[in-house]
Amino acid sequence: MTKTHPTNATNNSSIIAPAATTATTRKIPSFSFEAYLSEKADKVNRALDEAIPLQKPMKIHQAMRYSLLAGGKRVRPILCLAACSLVGGDDATAMPIACAVEMIHTMSLIHDDLPCMDNDDLRRGRPTNHKVFGEDTAVLAGDALLSLAFNHVAEKTKNVEHCRVVRAIAELALAIGSEGLVAGQIVDLDSEGEKISLNELEYIHVHKTSMLLEAAAVCGGILGGGESTEVESLRKYARCIGLLFQVVDDILDVTKSSEQLGKTAGKDLATEKATYPRLMGLAKAREFAGELARKAVDELSHFDALKAAPLYHLAGYLATRQN
Amino acid sequence: MTKTHPTNATNNSSIIAPAATTATTRKIPSFSFEAYLSEKADKVNRALDEAIPLQKPMKIHQAMRYSLLAGGKRVRPILCLAACSLVGGDDATAMPIACAVEMIHTMSLIHDDLPCMDNDDLRRGRPTNHKVFGEDTAVLAGDALLSLAFNHVAEKTKNVEHCRVVRAIAELALAIGSEGLVAGQIVDLDSEGEKISLNELEYIHVHKTSMLLEAAAVCGGILGGGESTEVESLRKYARCIGLLFQVVDDILDVTKSSEQLGKTAGKDLATEKATYPRLMGLAKAREFAGELARKAVDELSHFDALKAAPLYHLAGYLATRQN
Repeated sequence: MTKTHPTNATNNSSIIAPAATTATTRKIPSFSFEAYLSEKADKVNRALDEAIPLQKPMKIHQAMRYSLLAGGKRVRPILCLAACSLVGGDDATAMPIACAVEMIHTMSLIHDDLPCMDNDDLRRGRPTNHKVFGEDTAVLAGDALLSLAFNHVAEKTKNVEHCRVVRAIAELALAIGSEGLVAGQIVDLDSEGEKISLNELEYIHVHKTSMLLEAAAVCGGILGGGESTEVESLRKYARCIGLLFQVVDDILDVTKSSEQLGKTAGKDLATEKATYPRLMGLAKAREFAGELARKAVDELSHFDALKAAPLYHLAGYLATRQN
Repeated sequence: MTKTHPTNATNNSSIIAPAATTATTRKIPSFSFEAYLSEKADKVNRALDEAIPLQKPMKIHQAMRYSLLAGGKRVRPILCLAACSLVGGDDATAMPIACAVEMIHTMSLIHDDLPCMDNDDLRRGRPTNHKVFGEDTAVLAGDALLSLAFNHVAEKTKNVEHCRVVRAIAELALAIGSEGLVAGQIVDLDSEGEKISLNELEYIHVHKTSMLLEAAAVCGGILGGGESTEVESLRKYARCIGLLFQVVDDILDVTKSSEQLGKTAGKDLATEKATYPRLMGLAKAREFAGELARKAVDELSHFDALKAAPLYHLAGYLATRQN
């Protein structure tokens, strides 16, 4: 367990500029975001548990459940539910696609951890999927989660116009393919050990992280019955918090201990990986995170403040998270 | 190059019982199946080529195109087009899902060939995807093809009721997940070196092979505007020819030379893999293939014979193919 920057690691205050935090809190009506997060995460966990019963063939369903039900903050599905509710939909409407987004996220983690990719042995404090079930099963568990995601959206989305379901599926599928998540992953793999520019770093993060968050918000908005302008505001909001999520991740890697993060800290530094603090300096990276949080929150001004409260808080939460 | 059964390998006649061939040819109006196959395969190849332009990031699109455009008989997409046309639809209507089915089939081949799975170096006479692009890219190329398949169906299917598009996506996704293709693959991997029963062998083949063919036919029928009873006849037809395809594959493996097959013959025998000839004997396996061809063709009796000609011939073609 290494503390890379012990002086910063002891600083428990917000990692972004105070102005941003003020901006995110100023407009927010009284609302317990922690209670909201916990209630929605429970709901998502129950839905995910039901989505994959432990049935034959046992091994593949065990492997799928092992990674899907391993906890995690459920940021993506909660974003999807919040976006749906913002435009007037309810949780039941968005839940199938919220679950689909989490299945896809889990698939990407399982495949990323494979020996031929990032070769990680630990994920969320537990052995990675291929360490427990073998590489062959891990590849298949990812494939099965990806296809189940689409089956789930197509079969379980009730009381929604079919044209909206089709639009949501198109968005979701685009976000994870060779113009989305996979594009980010391949450019990331190809740039290992190379010197990359800030533009290239942003390309990687927008594709690896933002696009799935964007799809989560956009699909929630589409299924919830949102107008095109509402859906586009949600898209811009999510694109900002997606990048914000990654910038904060990079900052935490150099400012926190492994113990505080629950994963190996200083890993980016040790592997000479390009990060925002490395390319723009820690102070500028914090400023950039603040700017992204402000931009995200600006997009919410088009909506009713009370309804937008969860998304206001989500931006603040992602900007100020400590692990 | 080993000839496992030289006496059989020289026999160029139908590998199934003659009765079946008669049954499949008797009812067929004059129709050039070879010209049909070649015309449809060209059409499918052009659509696949257009579906994945060579764009940035170059490497992932090269890898996807390398395996997707490597030839192959295009049986699945042609089945999809034929099913659509049988119920009154045109090729343009079914083409997006025909392409999607081929993308999914290609994904399953790329992932199956990985070192952690079947560890194959050659596919269709060329080095496998991971041999050319690396294992990491091969995993990602498969993932990207799978997601592109769903994007393609959702975005490119025009002039079809959205409810039919959603139904088709649900069918397709179910066919490849942990209750479809992946289920067959995991049971196959788990039974390596084990003694398995005829029922288990059928489970593997129905899931690994039949279900995607079934989805191809069913989705073609759904998008083409087919009634439920028509779609169910197509389902039963495709389930039979899916299993037929596999039984014939097993028979060819022990009766043909590597040269005749264009791939390593006698591989099943060498690896002690369970096959139909091994479990029921060669004569009974041929009888079973004939029975499946007859059952498939029986399902077509509900349709206009002229319109059903391609599917009659397809069953005959799969039953009598020599490689």
